[in-house]
Amino acid sequence: MSHIPLSAKLGSNTVIENDVSIGENVVIGHNTVILQGTKIGDNVTIGCNCVLGIKPSINKRMRKISNSTRQLVIEANTRIGHVVSIYSGTQIGKHVFIGDHASIRENVTIEEGSVVGRAAIVELNSKIGKFCTIQTLAYVTGDTILEDNVFIGPCVSMSNDKYMGAEEYSLKGPHIKKGAKIGNNASLLPAVIIGVNTIVGAGSVVTKNIGDNVVVAGVPAKELTSS
Amino acid sequence: MSHIPLSAKLGSNTVIENDVSIGENVVIGHNTVILQGTKIGDNVTIGCNCVLGIKPSINKRMRKISNSTRQLVIEANTRIGHVVSIYSGTQIGKHVFIGDHASIRENVTIEEGSVVGRAAIVELNSKIGKFCTIQTLAYVTGDTILEDNVFIGPCVSMSNDKYMGAEEYSLKGPHIKKGAKIGNNASLLPAVIIGVNTIVGAGSVVTKNIGDNVVVAGVPAKELTSS
Amino acid sequence: MSHIPLSAKLGSNTVIENDVSIGENVVIGHNTVILQGTKIGDNVTIGCNCVLGIKPSINKRMRKISNSTRQLVIEANTRIGHVVSIYSGTQIGKHVFIGDHASIRENVTIEEGSVVGRAAIVELNSKIGKFCTIQTLAYVTGDTILEDNVFIGPCVSMSNDKYMGAEEYSLKGPHIKKGAKIGNNASLLPAVIIGVNTIVGAGSVVTKNIGDNVVVAGVPAKELTSS
Repeated sequence: MSHIPLSAKLGSNTVIENDVSIGENVVIGHNTVILQGTKIGDNVTIGCNCVLGIKPSINKRMRKISNSTRQLVIEANTRIGHVVSIYSGTQIGKHVFIGDHASIRENVTIEEGSVVGRAAIVELNSKIGKFCTIQTLAYVTGDTILEDNVFIGPCVSMSNDKYMGAEEYSLKGPHIKKGAKIGNNASLLPAVIIGVNTIVGAGSVVTKNIGDNVVVAGVPAKELTSS
Repeated sequence: MSHIPLSAKLGSNTVIENDVSIGENVVIGHNTVILQGTKIGDNVTIGCNCVLGIKPSINKRMRKISNSTRQLVIEANTRIGHVVSIYSGTQIGKHVFIGDHASIRENVTIEEGSVVGRAAIVELNSKIGKFCTIQTLAYVTGDTILEDNVFIGPCVSMSNDKYMGAEEYSLKGPHIKKGAKIGNNASLLPAVIIGVNTIVGAGSVVTKNIGDNVVVAGVPAKELTSS
Repeated sequence: MSHIPLSAKLGSNTVIENDVSIGENVVIGHNTVILQGTKIGDNVTIGCNCVLGIKPSINKRMRKISNSTRQLVIEANTRIGHVVSIYSGTQIGKHVFIGDHASIRENVTIEEGSVVGRAAIVELNSKIGKFCTIQTLAYVTGDTILEDNVFIGPCVSMSNDKYMGAEEYSLKGPHIKKGAKIGNNASLLPAVIIGVNTIVGAGSVVTKNIGDNVVVAGVPAKELTSS
């Protein structure tokens, strides 16, 4: 059984499985499903028609998960939109905002004050720092690192598989350093490093590492100015 | 209490909150949630697992909403797909079609006969004219204007924030004039104006204003022919 | 009435309409809707908040469907994620994996062992061969052919309408031959043919047919090397 405090506001047709922990003053919208092992902090708000705490499934074409039994933890004062799915084994910090239709995989860390936009997707094993913004429909691939204060524009695309499934390869996503900003619909190739405070123009294709404090644009992305 | 006419067909597990107005011959699918203050016209069809009439939330990293209490109004003969989310303070005209998994924010106007495709997103304060087509997975950013008969191809991306969160800036999306057509996966920068009947090629990046009746393509987009 | 075997595990608030056929050892998540005429094979697993077996609607701006009354068939050992929508008249083979938030239209065939990623969309009349991978947020337009072992990277975009709604035109999507690989966020124009084992670089725009065993990249895509 799960203990639901008297201060919680639950919508109609919510499903709360066993071993769910719910803090004070939590709001859960209609038709939302909270799966076994989810831990929800104080003052968290969750919209309607969400599925939280999904256990990763193993498919032979997909990557093995080291530890699929851990909890989903949502810390205090965080707000989850509507029609959101989030996996277990993921930790979401305080004052985070997750937009409607977003999906977040297992073994992800999202630190305090970050925003994951509407219909944005964060794949497994990724680390999102503090006060990052991941805009609408952006795609953060698996094994990606976003340091603090990174801005990912709408519809940005990343990949982590250099051989597109053809060879055994250790998957690695981009590493985006503090304060970098990626323009809308830019494409980042596997394992590229984007430097501190660097700006990548809209629609650019980043094929190699980029240093700190530069502005790049184009296909492939080239340096425009140094600052 | 909400008055539900005898002619309405409601699915299983639907949630209809208070102060919802429902016209004649309305169909609402299973597990769909209609939130307080929503007004649904005659002959409107709504799919399963939708959330309609969402009140905007205020997050310190997000924009303030001038008037968050207005209704969601869906006019007669409009069809809403499955797993759709729509905010309050938005007006959807007659004979509009909203695809599955689409999401539409607050303070949006969509006029008669327009189509919003599957998983397409329309952000806040945008105005969509008559008989527009916004295709699958296209992203219409906030404060965008689409005049009548505009075509937005699949996966088109827009942005409205020139400084990517870095400075105080009055956000402004693109302004796309009558009959213009934007090819699939094109990227539009903040505040660009696209002229009447102009065509933007697939995958182009539009960085500055474009006149009427021209064809542009490339990164950055350049004029190909004048007609 | 639908016959539900004793071996089936149904979540809370599931809706199973009439004339649904369910095999042995099927798991259906909470709040999922299975619409009339759906046929689910043995050992199929379906997540929460899905809508399966949707009947296509006819809109005057949209294409007519030749046969809208056929079943959705999901063959044995296939796994469907959470918040997924799938239309009737579609056939999904054995050992297929459909990611969360994905949407698959009517009259689609997906053969054995293929993967449709998270939030990916497959439009009507498309044929997906065996052991294909369609990654996260990729868009497979209508009337597309993917032969066996094709890899579609994340956020790849396709179109099937050369005139963007302006003229009467027989819609035709890309034809991607065996073993071809399309990099993330590439754009494919209507009716392009991509050859056997050909590789298309990330962010490329493919405007014309490409032969077998080549590597192309850029806007527009040009051949880099021959192998």
